[in-house]
Amino acid sequence: MISKRLLQLAQLSAVGLTGYYVGVVSKEEENHIFVDGRPLRSMPALPIFGTVSAAAPFVDSGSPKDRVSQIMKYGFPGLDNVRSYDDFVLSYDRRTRVPHWVFEHLTKEHVMKNDQVDRSKCDFMADESIHPFFRSLNSDYKGSGFDRGHMAAAGNHKIAQKHVEQTFFLTNMAPQVGEGFNRHAWNRLEKHVRKLTKVYENVYCCTGPLYLPRRESDGKCYVKYQVIGANSVAVPTHFYKVVVGEAADGSLDMEAYVMPNQKIPDDTPLSVFMVQPETVERAAGLLFFDKLQRNKLTRINGRKL
Amino acid sequence: MISKRLLQLAQLSAVGLTGYYVGVVSKEEENHIFVDGRPLRSMPALPIFGTVSAAAPFVDSGSPKDRVSQIMKYGFPGLDNVRSYDDFVLSYDRRTRVPHWVFEHLTKEHVMKNDQVDRSKCDFMADESIHPFFRSLNSDYKGSGFDRGHMAAAGNHKIAQKHVEQTFFLTNMAPQVGEGFNRHAWNRLEKHVRKLTKVYENVYCCTGPLYLPRRESDGKCYVKYQVIGANSVAVPTHFYKVVVGEAADGSLDMEAYVMPNQKIPDDTPLSVFMVQPETVERAAGLLFFDKLQRNKLTRINGRKL
Repeated sequence: MISKRLLQLAQLSAVGLTGYYVGVVSKEEENHIFVDGRPLRSMPALPIFGTVSAAAPFVDSGSPKDRVSQIMKYGFPGLDNVRSYDDFVLSYDRRTRVPHWVFEHLTKEHVMKNDQVDRSKCDFMADESIHPFFRSLNSDYKGSGFDRGHMAAAGNHKIAQKHVEQTFFLTNMAPQVGEGFNRHAWNRLEKHVRKLTKVYENVYCCTGPLYLPRRESDGKCYVKYQVIGANSVAVPTHFYKVVVGEAADGSLDMEAYVMPNQKIPDDTPLSVFMVQPETVERAAGLLFFDKLQRNKLTRINGRKL
Repeated sequence: MISKRLLQLAQLSAVGLTGYYVGVVSKEEENHIFVDGRPLRSMPALPIFGTVSAAAPFVDSGSPKDRVSQIMKYGFPGLDNVRSYDDFVLSYDRRTRVPHWVFEHLTKEHVMKNDQVDRSKCDFMADESIHPFFRSLNSDYKGSGFDRGHMAAAGNHKIAQKHVEQTFFLTNMAPQVGEGFNRHAWNRLEKHVRKLTKVYENVYCCTGPLYLPRRESDGKCYVKYQVIGANSVAVPTHFYKVVVGEAADGSLDMEAYVMPNQKIPDDTPLSVFMVQPETVERAAGLLFFDKLQRNKLTRINGRKL
């Protein structure tokens, strides 16, 4: 799943703060980022999988039911304002005007070059299924300095033009730093996830925003994030991806990443952004892959269990 | 519903910023508090009621179904992690570890003195129905300097000891400034709501937290709030109450309040905290009373429609 070198780095960084946010923020800065009172990288090594299983919610679009069932095979991370599209499913946060989570199911076929599909013909568009009070608009992003960053990546939905077009709904977006993040480090992470389809028959990918607290000079912890536009669209401090690869024999490997929404040097290996899945669950208020059978999981972040 | 003097003040403050947060923060400060790009007090005068009606969600406790139906008669503001107790219903925000909203139905009987009910015998307690990752604990509040502030007020549930006890679940709490807020101005607002049961047959009260953005010196808007304890319980910047009084003839009056989570001078009239319901809806990501028939509404914040 990841090279020996990256594995080494991941192991190094898993035991302490080594390498985390290399070159992005100082080690001192990192010591100020907390999840439930513990520094981001000092979380326990094994995730506790959710014991409260989420029931299948009402899904409200015209997407075929069996496709939704396949995408959501391992459980819904949460059930707030769920929207299903033809090739991905999301939960929309009406308060922040960005999604809580976006779920995709990828195979080789989904990410394969397809001349019938042209991304350049796609337009970013408001999702009219969201009440106008809570709907983000293109005008909110305009002039903000932030990209409209895809959660479900456009490049993951190449089976049909309609699929890639739907990834341009603003419900699937969050404000991302463009240069050095959306167009670079984050894009590298998206490519890495696509490459996993070469190793695994099925890849399940959950993506979303985080609003992480930071200890300030008064010794107290604060969550602070910018909001943009007339609809106060939240600019997340971080983004996560939690990914499960399902091999032909049914065994499962999991990877979890948290990246700060800021310019990241090009030579930063992705492995330094690996965190324990539990860290993301606590910070996001979500439970990932809670229908997954624990004994089928063989690796987390490349480490054998 | 409110005295002529208060009505006057409310009208004054509805047209501009006059009187808002009197003595609490400066007028200049207030100009920095925004909801969807507009200063808090400059929102349109009439709420647009939700057109997307919330379906009745799965309600998971042992509370009698007809009681839940009565409390939620005018619609669920949102459907995220709904919990019903014997005399109130709430939606829990797993990310912030405080509720999104708490709904109560009050009558004279609910708020009447009852010697069988003793608040002093109640203990604050964690709600074990919440997954441990997202559950707030008494230890989170301890030493934080904040009160465990009731959303459903203890004094609104005097029909049975069990009812008042359930208001002490930490799912019904949010960190509130004690002196000058929870114990004073907020308490006055709770008393005001109880008094409405003398005027109306039925009073419906929805209470919850807000995290309002503020314009900083760089010209950008930020949401900033403290988090406390090992579970990072959010300290809301403001709290809201949206209240509907249902008269014997079926006519309905609505009031909406937003109060900053800070020391408020004792002589500040409640009316200065009145805002348009739409303001709260936009800021909270919720729709209040969306099953209410628009033509039965006769007053908002004391003003005839």
